[in-house]
Amino acid sequence: TGLDALGDNPHRRLNLLTGEWVLVSPHRAKRPWQGQTEAIPADTRPAHDPTCYLCPGNERAGGEHNPDYAGTFVFDNDFAALRPDTGDAQTEIGGLLRARTEPGICRVICFSPRHDLSLPQMAVPAIRGVVDLWADEYARLGALPEIGHVQIFENKGEMMGCSNPHPHGQIWAQRSVPMAAAREGERQAEHFAAHGRTLLADYLALELDLAERIVVENDHFVALVPFWAVWPFETIVISRRPARDLTALSSEERDGLADVLKRLTGRYDALFGVSFPYSAGIHQAPTDGEPHPEWHLHMHFYPPLLRSATVKKFMVGYEMMGEPQRDVTPESSAARLRDVAESGGVR
Amino acid sequence: TGLDALGDNPHRRLNLLTGEWVLVSPHRAKRPWQGQTEAIPADTRPAHDPTCYLCPGNERAGGEHNPDYAGTFVFDNDFAALRPDTGDAQTEIGGLLRARTEPGICRVICFSPRHDLSLPQMAVPAIRGVVDLWADEYARLGALPEIGHVQIFENKGEMMGCSNPHPHGQIWAQRSVPMAAAREGERQAEHFAAHGRTLLADYLALELDLAERIVVENDHFVALVPFWAVWPFETIVISRRPARDLTALSSEERDGLADVLKRLTGRYDALFGVSFPYSAGIHQAPTDGEPHPEWHLHMHFYPPLLRSATVKKFMVGYEMMGEPQRDVTPESSAARLRDVAESGGVR
Ligand SMILES: O=P(O)(O)O[C@H]1O[C@H](CO)[C@@H](O)[C@H](O)[C@H]1O
Ligand SMILES: O=P(O)(O)O[C@H]1O[C@H](CO)[C@@H](O)[C@H](O)[C@H]1O
Repeated sequence: TGLDALGDNPHRRLNLLTGEWVLVSPHRAKRPWQGQTEAIPADTRPAHDPTCYLCPGNERAGGEHNPDYAGTFVFDNDFAALRPDTGDAQTEIGGLLRARTEPGICRVICFSPRHDLSLPQMAVPAIRGVVDLWADEYARLGALPEIGHVQIFENKGEMMGCSNPHPHGQIWAQRSVPMAAAREGERQAEHFAAHGRTLLADYLALELDLAERIVVENDHFVALVPFWAVWPFETIVISRRPARDLTALSSEERDGLADVLKRLTGRYDALFGVSFPYSAGIHQAPTDGEPHPEWHLHMHFYPPLLRSATVKKFMVGYEMMGEPQRDVTPESSAARLRDVAESGGVR
Repeated sequence: TGLDALGDNPHRRLNLLTGEWVLVSPHRAKRPWQGQTEAIPADTRPAHDPTCYLCPGNERAGGEHNPDYAGTFVFDNDFAALRPDTGDAQTEIGGLLRARTEPGICRVICFSPRHDLSLPQMAVPAIRGVVDLWADEYARLGALPEIGHVQIFENKGEMMGCSNPHPHGQIWAQRSVPMAAAREGERQAEHFAAHGRTLLADYLALELDLAERIVVENDHFVALVPFWAVWPFETIVISRRPARDLTALSSEERDGLADVLKRLTGRYDALFGVSFPYSAGIHQAPTDGEPHPEWHLHMHFYPPLLRSATVKKFMVGYEMMGEPQRDVTPESSAARLRDVAESGGVR
């Protein structure tokens, strides 16, 4: 598999998408853990919670009432980090300190009217509805003249800073391409210029060939633990056909994405027998009016749990001052995710 | 102050040391918080804990017994992420996937024999002892032929993945310069080549002139909230005289560092009335045998707390997929840290 030469030794791996490195210490997961453990709140959610500001018909922070929606529902974030009415101003202080105002729009997307679901418990057609809304929002927001990038993401679980268990995600659309996406754009542009194929097309072909980090796949999408995964059970979902954004997907491909999302998150839930916390996000071409043939859409899942439902990986001292470090190999994590059943029946 | 042009608008600021951006949303801290809160364990530590593997005389994981140390104590980490006996091997799979073994050494440093202290409760001469040990370890490890970088850090508090409340830090020394330090090296080299002065000397002069982000200072060191701070109460400690590493500091400068560390961490503890969690780390010149006149030693403090002892900032979805985002301005955080008393009497 090409990795045998490294044996069980600590080693660094290169992230092809960002140019960043990760330190892998295969045997470190064996150390005893006496530190902080996480409380996973028992899932006793009712189908409708009268105190939830995301449930149909309920009142939101701004005093508005949600419609009686049946599928998905999207609205402007009542506590937005970015605002559309931000005028352009910049400053350079003492020739050194640079800052510039940043206009943008923050949106909230409810995945379902049902307060008690999350993606793996939704039916594939319902998840397809979420995919369609993501595509529509990307198209609509991206077409605005002041919006150069649309970041769609989901924080799931209290451990990931999510303050409401109603199934929902967010969109932060803004003028600039944020740093992580910009780095991926540079690496993809380099590869496309050199080879005339997208970086992720070549990467995916190699992973399918090696078949040691694949988790789930169908005709249109593949989910795998990337060679350079940072989080213990990090995965990336890649379209088989290079597509620069969600709007370029056919109807069958969108169904394929919904299917892979259900099966991947179902495996996550099965792994430790809990509703698995994570942050997930979709990287697509910037909406700056350029063609971006180098961009290949993909979705990242960054789950924090390490060895059980209550012990997470801490990205702290060394990781903050040096670089990310992981305690198990991506190959062993992929094998564990392949070995569990896909839980997540339709609730 | 140069920032007035931005008003209260969301804006991005450039990190001079890394070339990275941070998104600042001045008013977002006002949103209500219904999400996860942190339990700060009550500090009922005894002066000596018979079950602590770091206290003098006690047994460690490997079966060894700690000496009856009176000041500091350093030893090889029993669960090391890096190992000195790692042979050199590398692989490139399919022309795309790159990995290389990484030799290194992980050390643990006890700051004090007293189980119940942390830096702010130690006397300045005792903290000076820690500074001396840091310098000695940097020199000794850095002189080894296979060590190109020495990362000294401390994870403090359960929230930061610290599993033992005995006051201690760590050192991870390794062949490669890890990513965050490498980026800082590049930016510093560019500035030094252009101006013949260190980047941090010019930056510090400007900050002292502006006087709006300074927290504590003495004749030798200054602690301030950097213009580009990511964490709500992030600070950076900079030597007034450019010095590439701790071994280049005079005895008076080492005392100055100890004094600033005591006063800064005392302010942290006073801010929310708890033993303040953080990860801290010292960035110094790589130990690759080059002169590195561009390197200016400094220490970062990354504390997670946002608005109280129990509500932290989550660096999740947007921050992971896009770039770091903060909810209060660095200027207001600096003002709050200036306004609290320096707690931390000698216990
Ligand atoms: O070495 P420790 O204290 O067991 O572990 C802690 O610090 C390490 C270095 O920052 C991290 O890799 C771990 O995730 C964290 O729990
Ligand atoms: O917008 P929310 O859900 O209130 O907040 C959550 O997601 C945001 C975007 O990743 C983060 O900035 C916040 O720290 C986190 O708590």
